[in-house]
Amino acid sequence: MKRIITLLTDFGIKDPYVAQMKGVILSINAEAQIIDISHEVSKHNIHEAAFILLSTYSKFPKRSIHVVVVDPGVGTRRRAIVVETRRYLFVGPDNGVLSLAVDDDGVVRAYEIRNPLFLRSHISSTFHGRDIFAPVAAYLSLGIPPEYVGPEIDFRMIKRTAEPKAFIINDKTFRACVIYIDNFGNVITNIKADMIPRGVRNITIKFKDKELTIPFKRAYNDVPKGEVLSLIDSFNYLEVAVNQGNAAKRLGLTVGDSIVIELS
Amino acid sequence: MKRIITLLTDFGIKDPYVAQMKGVILSINAEAQIIDISHEVSKHNIHEAAFILLSTYSKFPKRSIHVVVVDPGVGTRRRAIVVETRRYLFVGPDNGVLSLAVDDDGVVRAYEIRNPLFLRSHISSTFHGRDIFAPVAAYLSLGIPPEYVGPEIDFRMIKRTAEPKAFIINDKTFRACVIYIDNFGNVITNIKADMIPRGVRNITIKFKDKELTIPFKRAYNDVPKGEVLSLIDSFNYLEVAVNQGNAAKRLGLTVGDSIVIELS
Amino acid sequence: MKRIITLLTDFGIKDPYVAQMKGVILSINAEAQIIDISHEVSKHNIHEAAFILLSTYSKFPKRSIHVVVVDPGVGTRRRAIVVETRRYLFVGPDNGVLSLAVDDDGVVRAYEIRNPLFLRSHISSTFHGRDIFAPVAAYLSLGIPPEYVGPEIDFRMIKRTAEPKAFIINDKTFRACVIYIDNFGNVITNIKADMIPRGVRNITIKFKDKELTIPFKRAYNDVPKGEVLSLIDSFNYLEVAVNQGNAAKRLGLTVGDSIVIELS
Repeated sequence: MKRIITLLTDFGIKDPYVAQMKGVILSINAEAQIIDISHEVSKHNIHEAAFILLSTYSKFPKRSIHVVVVDPGVGTRRRAIVVETRRYLFVGPDNGVLSLAVDDDGVVRAYEIRNPLFLRSHISSTFHGRDIFAPVAAYLSLGIPPEYVGPEIDFRMIKRTAEPKAFIINDKTFRACVIYIDNFGNVITNIKADMIPRGVRNITIKFKDKELTIPFKRAYNDVPKGEVLSLIDSFNYLEVAVNQGNAAKRLGLTVGDSIVIELS
Repeated sequence: MKRIITLLTDFGIKDPYVAQMKGVILSINAEAQIIDISHEVSKHNIHEAAFILLSTYSKFPKRSIHVVVVDPGVGTRRRAIVVETRRYLFVGPDNGVLSLAVDDDGVVRAYEIRNPLFLRSHISSTFHGRDIFAPVAAYLSLGIPPEYVGPEIDFRMIKRTAEPKAFIINDKTFRACVIYIDNFGNVITNIKADMIPRGVRNITIKFKDKELTIPFKRAYNDVPKGEVLSLIDSFNYLEVAVNQGNAAKRLGLTVGDSIVIELS
Repeated sequence: MKRIITLLTDFGIKDPYVAQMKGVILSINAEAQIIDISHEVSKHNIHEAAFILLSTYSKFPKRSIHVVVVDPGVGTRRRAIVVETRRYLFVGPDNGVLSLAVDDDGVVRAYEIRNPLFLRSHISSTFHGRDIFAPVAAYLSLGIPPEYVGPEIDFRMIKRTAEPKAFIINDKTFRACVIYIDNFGNVITNIKADMIPRGVRNITIKFKDKELTIPFKRAYNDVPKGEVLSLIDSFNYLEVAVNQGNAAKRLGLTVGDSIVIELS
């Protein structure tokens, strides 16, 4: 049965781990269409994976199955779960990595994976991506109802990872932080587009002992090459960037840094 | 409808950008077969992307749709275009990135993308790959005629990027340059195979203040491991290489370097 | 005809080489389902590729076609071969890269690729992945019998690469070595799970002038974050790891290092 399965892991692309998962999936459902979201999540970084998933899951067709394996607790007592949301199925460890996306789409039901029928016969204690999550996703892609994988669990008790909220000091000033830096060096803050009123021309960004006033523009190329700007980016957040340059390196910002933003 | 869509970008493989494009495509045409050409083009390097596209586009089945997003001018007035060539469709920004390939295959017609029907409903000013090029490619893969995307434009006015030509000083001497260095460190020059007559045994390469005479061979392994050689490579250009080593590092050559080649 | 073709190379993911292979395959069989095993094999490292293939090939559906191009001898007299095993077909250079996997699955017959019908019309001397192995795999995926590609060869004469065996000094002491380090920094030894009796609580690892006693556990998270442990990993080998850390860097171990392991 044709169905999309996406994969998001911290496995990197050199080692055979991702291909082993794909082989397991295709051995169960040769018609599954496997799409990589990313395998370059920073090792063991649950929050980063949760953010990437949040920004991507809804771009896929309804009924796609999203598998996430960023799983530092593999082999211990953290649960393996399937979460059914309004439009999708999610498969992964119950460590918070699914939480931003499933709450965004709206959880319908959640299940703990327990039924050995849908797992590989030998389950390693180090690679549940291959031995548990891949086969479960493959069986779900064949149309097996999620309630077959194990007992329903209280979805309010799924582990959550917090998306830090920007704090509004006044309608022109926010205490915020850096939530993601992409490989262009663009600095994504947790200030959402709808927090920024019309007519803003500049922002002042304060961090550590620095203070910098930069233009607020529509597009990277609205400032000369090499200059710093801010804009609403494709995640729909306020972003600090350098036109054709690396803002994170230029400004010395990293994920988690606290910043104060003033609009003007 | 089954149809191949290739993707060539400078987005890297960690961030969710490529997966967002794939999700958008598959949401429009679940049968599209998406193949990555590369997402590791040097950031904003239009010429490098144009060369990679030129070397690859014609290996794919006729009617494949090639999407290129190396787009430093995103969100400004550079046009978004579809180019119909003899055998393929190309989708991308009108900044030169498509030009080497479309001219090589032979342009039939070109169109500016304007019809909002074939775009995402909200178009960011930073990510036209997801909001314009991906949905347009997906609709084209469904068989929508390219003239539906917007007005035909004069294809002679599409922006071109120059492929530097080697300059023939005499039938044994060329002023040339380095046009690509691959990840093995092989140094690809702009001297084409047909410029080199039969019977050449050695080449002398002069660059900066260095001069080096190296054998001209068929295969890397025709010299001992670790030795420098030259050969006609799989791009059909004269290449300087080290057998199982990195010629670019060994010789200190980078893309764009001017060289003089003498055959002997 | 729908059929899985896997690719394992040292080509990296920036250059157009992998995409050229995919284009050639899809031009012959548009229904082929191409899955990447890895393109980040260390350059020219036949043994590493052989290990990755061994650990992955059997996860794929029967009748999958595994193509391996780690080929420092390209263009010289090393043979290009197809190996038919109990459940799979393998395509690659006869340099040992296929040997661990084909011997593991059981060789049925082997053939030297010679029939020009199944090759690209112009064969470069530097890229047989594109000009020989990709088209042969594509024709095999269409159901062309392997004996059509060329003469049968004595499969006992296929080049082998040795998987170093651990040497048992006594039932608690092994002279072993590091056979792989993954991108988490986990150190995989050549001591197989079945060489380790029940009841082991610790292992002592001796290498260079160091000696270290570490717990033998089930899962990474059975020790506190940042601590060294050993366990049976998903390859089914004894592995030395750091919970959420990099064991190879911490201990200064690299592939090929000799170690002595004592169980206690």
